[in-house]
Amino acid sequence: MIFPESIKIVEVGPRDGLQNECTVFNIEQKLQLINSLIDSGIKNIEVTSFVHPKIIPQLADAERLLELIPWNKDVNYNALVPNEKGFERSAKTNLREITVFLSASESHNKKNTNCSISDSLRRIENICRLAKESDIKIRAIIATAFGCPFEGEVPVERVLLITKELYRMGCYEVALGDTIGVANPRQVFDVFNTIRKELPELSYAAHFHDTNKMALANVVTAMQAGVEIFDSSIGGLGGCPFAPGATGNVSTENLVYMLNKMNIETGINLKKLINSISLIEEVLNRKIELIPEFKKIKK
Amino acid sequence: MIFPESIKIVEVGPRDGLQNECTVFNIEQKLQLINSLIDSGIKNIEVTSFVHPKIIPQLADAERLLELIPWNKDVNYNALVPNEKGFERSAKTNLREITVFLSASESHNKKNTNCSISDSLRRIENICRLAKESDIKIRAIIATAFGCPFEGEVPVERVLLITKELYRMGCYEVALGDTIGVANPRQVFDVFNTIRKELPELSYAAHFHDTNKMALANVVTAMQAGVEIFDSSIGGLGGCPFAPGATGNVSTENLVYMLNKMNIETGINLKKLINSISLIEEVLNRKIELIPEFKKIKK
Repeated sequence: MIFPESIKIVEVGPRDGLQNECTVFNIEQKLQLINSLIDSGIKNIEVTSFVHPKIIPQLADAERLLELIPWNKDVNYNALVPNEKGFERSAKTNLREITVFLSASESHNKKNTNCSISDSLRRIENICRLAKESDIKIRAIIATAFGCPFEGEVPVERVLLITKELYRMGCYEVALGDTIGVANPRQVFDVFNTIRKELPELSYAAHFHDTNKMALANVVTAMQAGVEIFDSSIGGLGGCPFAPGATGNVSTENLVYMLNKMNIETGINLKKLINSISLIEEVLNRKIELIPEFKKIKK
Repeated sequence: MIFPESIKIVEVGPRDGLQNECTVFNIEQKLQLINSLIDSGIKNIEVTSFVHPKIIPQLADAERLLELIPWNKDVNYNALVPNEKGFERSAKTNLREITVFLSASESHNKKNTNCSISDSLRRIENICRLAKESDIKIRAIIATAFGCPFEGEVPVERVLLITKELYRMGCYEVALGDTIGVANPRQVFDVFNTIRKELPELSYAAHFHDTNKMALANVVTAMQAGVEIFDSSIGGLGGCPFAPGATGNVSTENLVYMLNKMNIETGINLKKLINSISLIEEVLNRKIELIPEFKKIKK
């Protein structure tokens, strides 16, 4: 059984995590969290989003946050850009990478972006054109790539088609998102294996939510299918306790713990990472569920 | 990626689960639980133990329970037998299968059975001789097969050596136990793959605890190494909330859910299984953590 020697972790807590928490972090708290993550060795952070502040008030401070975060050649930041307006906002910041997104299922895409998949692709094509002019790298996330809350199963052919389009438009990396946490380990292997074989030129990431406790199992078969980049969220952020059924991304600490045990390098110091959690608990005023070993580490 | 078409689940909640809960189930509650499990399609149950009642008072009613459970040719019961005295007790019941056990690490074996591994093997050899005379099948569990709380790593060579001895003595099935939940997916594949290649005649089971959230990931790589039998516990029983760090077996419902999603047959009706959990919650007077979909199912 062959696994990668090292894994690149993209910390999405400050964006995907915080936008789904009921408690809003203020800018000082966000900075403290980001600094603490960087201190633990995190090198890739999805730091905020340029979705309209009315829709995601938790991330309304995008521009200010991007002014204040530590700009450091060792850390790669990116932020979600939903449309041309969002790109204009992002272009005025120091960002050298943005993330575009759409869903693999029509009904979720409609709900999430208020347009069809074709319209989303046209929108993304415009953003990509603008980004390339400014020499900005483009990452993409395909949401509901393994299942949709409204449509159920999502055919791999559709995910492949969208991936090909994103590649053609100039995206350098595509993350397949299991938005509602329904992917299973067999499916994860099959989907990544199929798409990577068809389009080996692209870089692939997996973006799993742990809704049904299968996220770590899915990481294992994704690695077997050749995936070496995983999105995860410190503390499993995003599981608002007041929104029944809402659960966060796979937690960065549990992911790093498993990879450490498997002798797969992440460059992240687990002890320091765990200590980032105290700040989160303080702000959210709730306990983050930790495995027994982490409880011993945590200050 | 090849997975088995079907998986045999051995429900260990009534033994491994209940012996680690602070609340003692009375015999009526145990019977209700067992009946409910059988009704959901469970066909293999580790139902109790003949460890001295002073050590495990939760299971002191072994003989009476074995009189009252529904004897049915479709359901296989087994019970833990620690020594000759325990075997004598078991031999007076209807049981046609017993489970012997020892640890793969000296210090855990000493703590758990108050003797060395060699002494345990001698004891087991005596039990096996007696069992064979009575035509009783013998299953074995090797505890701490993936790691020991006192010694850390456990060499696969030692697990192999013990497995060979158990096979020689007449055990038909060996379950490798991750007693403290430290096994990782790579290790699980390597250990089962190594041992199965050396001794393909034996039937192998995996007995995972979910202490560090890796149990389902471990199930996936165990299946890839050819394991088709898994021990699990309804509701993840065994995680006494008053014993810090104690966590139960991988939960039967989460295991069945994942296997269903992977199109792997278990013969278990998930809806009925979930409804067994209400009884457990009532007796333990605490909520069992359920994934969102199960909350919708549960009455």
